[in-house]
Amino acid sequence: MTEDVKINRGLKGIYFERSGVSHIDGAKGELLYRGYTIHDLAEHSTFEEVCYLLIHGELPTADALAAFDAQLKAGRTLPPQIHEIIHATRDGHPMDVLRTCVSALAALEPASHDKGEDGFLQNGLRLTSQVPMIIAAHQAIRNGRDPVPADPTLSHAANWLWMLKGEKPSADAARLADVDFILHAEHGANASSFAARVTVGTEANLHGAMVTALSTLAGPAHGGAAEDVMKMVQEIGKPENAAAYVKQKRGNREAVTGFGHRVYRAEDPRARHMRDGVRKLGQEMGAPEWYEILQAVVDAMKPYARHGLNVNVDFYSGVIYQLHGIPMDLYVPIFAIGRMPGWLVQCLEQQRSNILIRPLTLYNGPDARPYLPMDQR
Amino acid sequence: MTEDVKINRGLKGIYFERSGVSHIDGAKGELLYRGYTIHDLAEHSTFEEVCYLLIHGELPTADALAAFDAQLKAGRTLPPQIHEIIHATRDGHPMDVLRTCVSALAALEPASHDKGEDGFLQNGLRLTSQVPMIIAAHQAIRNGRDPVPADPTLSHAANWLWMLKGEKPSADAARLADVDFILHAEHGANASSFAARVTVGTEANLHGAMVTALSTLAGPAHGGAAEDVMKMVQEIGKPENAAAYVKQKRGNREAVTGFGHRVYRAEDPRARHMRDGVRKLGQEMGAPEWYEILQAVVDAMKPYARHGLNVNVDFYSGVIYQLHGIPMDLYVPIFAIGRMPGWLVQCLEQQRSNILIRPLTLYNGPDARPYLPMDQR
Repeated sequence: MTEDVKINRGLKGIYFERSGVSHIDGAKGELLYRGYTIHDLAEHSTFEEVCYLLIHGELPTADALAAFDAQLKAGRTLPPQIHEIIHATRDGHPMDVLRTCVSALAALEPASHDKGEDGFLQNGLRLTSQVPMIIAAHQAIRNGRDPVPADPTLSHAANWLWMLKGEKPSADAARLADVDFILHAEHGANASSFAARVTVGTEANLHGAMVTALSTLAGPAHGGAAEDVMKMVQEIGKPENAAAYVKQKRGNREAVTGFGHRVYRAEDPRARHMRDGVRKLGQEMGAPEWYEILQAVVDAMKPYARHGLNVNVDFYSGVIYQLHGIPMDLYVPIFAIGRMPGWLVQCLEQQRSNILIRPLTLYNGPDARPYLPMDQR
Repeated sequence: MTEDVKINRGLKGIYFERSGVSHIDGAKGELLYRGYTIHDLAEHSTFEEVCYLLIHGELPTADALAAFDAQLKAGRTLPPQIHEIIHATRDGHPMDVLRTCVSALAALEPASHDKGEDGFLQNGLRLTSQVPMIIAAHQAIRNGRDPVPADPTLSHAANWLWMLKGEKPSADAARLADVDFILHAEHGANASSFAARVTVGTEANLHGAMVTALSTLAGPAHGGAAEDVMKMVQEIGKPENAAAYVKQKRGNREAVTGFGHRVYRAEDPRARHMRDGVRKLGQEMGAPEWYEILQAVVDAMKPYARHGLNVNVDFYSGVIYQLHGIPMDLYVPIFAIGRMPGWLVQCLEQQRSNILIRPLTLYNGPDARPYLPMDQR
C-alpha cells in the first residue's frame, strides 16, 4: 500500500494557502511586504508603520499611524503575576521564560479568549507590546535588578533598548534595532508562522498560536542562526582563519551556519541591510574585525553560492547584538519581537477562512496482528 | 503567477512523512497501534502497556513492563515553582494553566534541553507523568485545597483519579479512565501531533513540541468536541427532543457536534468503547437518560452517515466525565493526558529523520509598488 503515494517530505514546494502579506521570490532574492520592497521599508519606514502595513495592507496616513502607535503604547502593561512567574523561572533560557509568560497571559487576561477577528487583532497588538517587556524584565530579574518600566515617549525599538539596558539608546542604536525588527517582521509560511496557522486551524485562540510560534522559532534551524554565527565568528577569531575554517567544514560535509535558506537561492535580500549595520557599528565602536571576519567567510563561501548557499539575514544580526553587549541567549527572543506582526497577520489570514490543517502520514509499520497475552510473549 | 499552482487547502490528502506508529483506515473505520487493533487494546491492554507499545513498537514482556512502569512512577514529581505558577494563574482555563506549566518545566528542569534521542524519550516519559499531576494540582488549588500527592501504588489512570478527587477510585472507574487514555493515546498526523512535528523540525526541544501540541489541542475543532457534546446534550434535555434538534441544525447547515472526522468516513472505531462505557456507567449511577439522549441523536443523524457524518470518539467521552462529576473545562486536559505517548512517539519519529517542515503560501497581494512618503498618502 506504500508504493503509489507521493511523500512530500518537509512539505517542500507544497502550497497550502494563498496569502496577501509577503511575496518572496527565492530565485531573484526579492522580498515584498504588501507590495513594498524590503529595501524601501528598511530605508524609509519604521517598525510601527510596517506593523500597520502588514496588518491593514496599506501604509498609514499620519493620523492612522498616530492612533496605531498610541494603541501599541497603551499595551505596554503586564499583570503583576508575570513578574512572579519570571522570578520562579529566572534561571531558564529566555525563550522558555518568554513562552511561559505568553502562555500565562492567556490565563491572566480574560480577553485572550476572544476569538473574533477584532479579538485576534487586539490580543495580537497587546502581545506585540508585551513581548519585549517580558524579555527585558527577565534580563533585569536574572541580574538582580528591578524591571525598567516602559517609557511612553519612546518608539517600540527605543523603548525595548531602554527597558533592556536602563539607559536611553542613541538615535543610531534605536534605528538599527528598528531596522532589525522591520527585516524580521514577516516571511511567509516559515515554520513558526505555519505552525501558528496549524494551531489557529483547530479554532484555538491567538495566545495559543503565539505560544506555538515561539516554541517553533526556538529551534536552531529556525531562529537560532544568529547565535550560531556569533559562536562561529568567535571560533574563527581573525579574518585570515576564515578560509581554512570553511574548507574544513565543507570537506567534512558540514553546514556553514548563516548560509542557505529553504526558499532563497540568491542572496537573502534582508542580509545587505544588516551587513551595512555591522560595518558601520563596528567602525564606530572601534571593533572592525567582526565585520572583516564575516566578509572573509563570505569570500570563502563564494564557490558554493551557485548551489544556493548565500548569506541569510541572520548571518549579520548576531554580531550587531554582540557589539551592543546583548547576551547570546537573547538573540532568538529579539527575533521574536520583530516577528510578532508577521505571526499576527498570518493568524488573522488563517482565521478569516479557517480550515483544519491536517496532512497524512503513510503507514509503514506492522500489518494487523493478534494481541498476545502476557504469558505468550 | 497564481494560475498554474495547486493549492492544497488544509493539506487534505497530502502525505508529508511515513510513520510506523498507527494505521487509520478511514473508509473501513479501522485503527491499529503498531499492528494491534484498537479493539484488542481497549479490551485487553493497559495505558502503561500501550505507552510501551507505541514507543518501542512491541508489546512488553512482564519484566520490561515492570521497569517501564517504575520509570513512569519515578517521574511523578514536580519542582516547587510549578505550584507557585499554578497559584499565579489559578483562575485561568485549565488548558492555559497546563500549557504554562509544561512550558515552565522547560525552564526549571535542565534535562529539558537534551535533544538527543534518549533525551527526548526521558523528557517525554517524565512529562507523561507530570501532566496529570499539573491538572490535578490546579483543580485542587483553584478549589482552595492542597494538591494530593501522587500514590506510587496506583496505576497511571487510578493515580490520576486519586490526585483529582482525593479518594481512591473504584476498579471500574479506574478501568474506564484507563480505556479512555488508551483510545486517545495516538492518532496519526492529527493537528496537534503534526504541529508538534513542525516544532521538532526546527530542532526545537521536546518540551517546546509538547507546548505546541497543547496549544493546538486546545482548539474546539480538535480537543473541544467532548465539551461541546456535553453542552449539546444538556441543551437537548431529553431523548424525544433529539430529532427536532438535529433537524433544525441540519436545516441551518450547522454541524452537529461529535459527528464527522477529517479521516474517518465510517464510524470512528474508538466510539464503540466509549459508548459501552456511557451505557454501563449511566445504569450503575441511575442516570440512563444521558445515554438515551446520545443514542437518539445518533438515530436522528443516520440519514447523514452516508456523507461520512458518523459519531467520533468524543461523542461519548464528555458524558462519561460528566457522570464522574468532572468539570467541563477539564475535558480537553484529560484528552491531553491520554495523547502524551502519541505526541512523544511522533516527535521521536520526526527527530530520527528530521527535516524542516515549511510549505508555501501563494502570494495574492499587490504587485510591487513604490514607497510613498507620508505627505503623499
